[in-house]
Amino acid sequence: MPELRRDPIVGRWVIISTDRGARPRDFMPCEPVRHSTTSLCPFCPGQERLTPKEIMAYRHNGSEPNLPGWTVRVVPNKFPALQVEGDMGREGVGMYDRMNGIGAHEVIIETDDHKQFLADLSPKRIEDVLWAYRDRIVDLKQDRRFRYILVFKNHGVAAGATLEHSHSQLIALPVVPTSVTDELDGCRNHFQQKERCTYCDIIRQELADGERIVADNPEFVCVTPFASRFPFEMWILPKRHSAYFEESQKTQFELLARTVSECLRRLNHVLSQPAYNFILHTSPLHEKTGDYYHWHLEIMPKLTQVAGFEWGTGFYINPVTPEEAAKFLRDAAL
Amino acid sequence: MPELRRDPIVGRWVIISTDRGARPRDFMPCEPVRHSTTSLCPFCPGQERLTPKEIMAYRHNGSEPNLPGWTVRVVPNKFPALQVEGDMGREGVGMYDRMNGIGAHEVIIETDDHKQFLADLSPKRIEDVLWAYRDRIVDLKQDRRFRYILVFKNHGVAAGATLEHSHSQLIALPVVPTSVTDELDGCRNHFQQKERCTYCDIIRQELADGERIVADNPEFVCVTPFASRFPFEMWILPKRHSAYFEESQKTQFELLARTVSECLRRLNHVLSQPAYNFILHTSPLHEKTGDYYHWHLEIMPKLTQVAGFEWGTGFYINPVTPEEAAKFLRDAAL
Repeated sequence: MPELRRDPIVGRWVIISTDRGARPRDFMPCEPVRHSTTSLCPFCPGQERLTPKEIMAYRHNGSEPNLPGWTVRVVPNKFPALQVEGDMGREGVGMYDRMNGIGAHEVIIETDDHKQFLADLSPKRIEDVLWAYRDRIVDLKQDRRFRYILVFKNHGVAAGATLEHSHSQLIALPVVPTSVTDELDGCRNHFQQKERCTYCDIIRQELADGERIVADNPEFVCVTPFASRFPFEMWILPKRHSAYFEESQKTQFELLARTVSECLRRLNHVLSQPAYNFILHTSPLHEKTGDYYHWHLEIMPKLTQVAGFEWGTGFYINPVTPEEAAKFLRDAAL
Repeated sequence: MPELRRDPIVGRWVIISTDRGARPRDFMPCEPVRHSTTSLCPFCPGQERLTPKEIMAYRHNGSEPNLPGWTVRVVPNKFPALQVEGDMGREGVGMYDRMNGIGAHEVIIETDDHKQFLADLSPKRIEDVLWAYRDRIVDLKQDRRFRYILVFKNHGVAAGATLEHSHSQLIALPVVPTSVTDELDGCRNHFQQKERCTYCDIIRQELADGERIVADNPEFVCVTPFASRFPFEMWILPKRHSAYFEESQKTQFELLARTVSECLRRLNHVLSQPAYNFILHTSPLHEKTGDYYHWHLEIMPKLTQVAGFEWGTGFYINPVTPEEAAKFLRDAAL
């Protein structure tokens, strides 16, 4: 019998199929994400003039800005969803609310090598990407117009990537997205009732249960969440309670990089290079959420058959149990 | 400059691009949905044995159940997401909640003619489809295990349809989806503050403004919502305040059918037969929402370029202003 499961943070119910015995490829055929472009890539070294001027880059050889020699490079998005200059211009339009689309939209180019995806990079190189996220958050946090910074990655055309050269994106927003306020509200309620963080409770229960664990090390645990919306959805959670990604310790960055590397490679192994999105869930910039919120990274493979009404209803049907998914991911021979 | 707009019901902010002057096809190339299957279709007359036994059908010639002669036919989904037999089996699993996947999952076959999509049917035939929704809701409402009935349509492969013969679906759920509770909460808050229905306020403001109107008749108005998440998103709203779709008057069914027909034909004209989802937003079955909730139909074209992080973040970037979209839709020569 199928099962209904409730997400303990936001209260969302999902339908989880409990049919068993199939191999992932039987029910999840997906288009492998591969390199194909041979034309000029604006994210490749030597083409720096094709992007807006860089905001920052990690260069280990003393090379000049906007020239080759970088390993991670952050540039403004050439087609930004939001505009960085201007004032907030908040106004009511009858019963409606609008404001100017003030914000930052940046691209984090994760590697100088067009032929490597994030999962192909060494943990050390992935760590640099994570440091770049952190450095940009710390810098943008000074701009008091911004209330939230959304860091995310679209990998593969099916997940919304328009350029194949491996990159993530960052959007600094003057508002907090409802998906974030929903999580904050859920965590605040839990804390008010129990004086404990929901995510810390989840980590304790998952480590005790064991059946939804994908990866585990002294600083991070990766689980397939109990009420997974998507097949092979994964959450990477820091074991230390912390609301702000950007306040992580150096040792945590090292182990987060290893965890991301491991989880993406496990995913690639089980599902043959699927498209995916990941989203950094971290605290709003200027809210004191330290007691009750817990930052984490959500990875959502984008499998071709999963589509349709979910995004309009917020109601999800997941044909793979998270326990099965975790087992396949854990058992992958890396 | 792009604009941030806030949905007045659920508080969701969306980024709306304000670039102007393009034609829809310039920025919205989409794969037209066309008939292609030539193989055996389980929804065609003569193939009734290929579906589970029918739940109901409209037959105007006294023909027998599960044989040809019907114009609308409702059958259980052959691969149901939920199972209709069994008890609720609610239980806690540590901090988590689960229950048996009890529910109904039905398919409304909208026409006996494989070559006609919903938009191709006469308003009279569309009206029959709407009556079928209503009849099934009224029937399933008697089963006290169910708390919500989700009626939706996936049109085209990009929108999640797996069979091309025109059909809608219905899922009866033992829980209320969070997307519905979010709307109910928003409407209840508005009512508590103002003693007015939010949707009634929206209708008044939209009719006065005019620039987001797509279609208008004595009973229904179709608008592109102020904070549209998707390009060419449309909401069809009854002008009479009512929380329950199934309580609509006969004259309303007639005019709703005309409105659906008109809006889908306008959409097809502007965007060349796009894939789309529509979702009936109606009240939970056994909640007294009559004062503050207002049923409506949301139509969301599924355009190939729109993908990515939206469904994971609940944060939407819409490259087409609803004012532009409404103008294109209004101006379509039907």
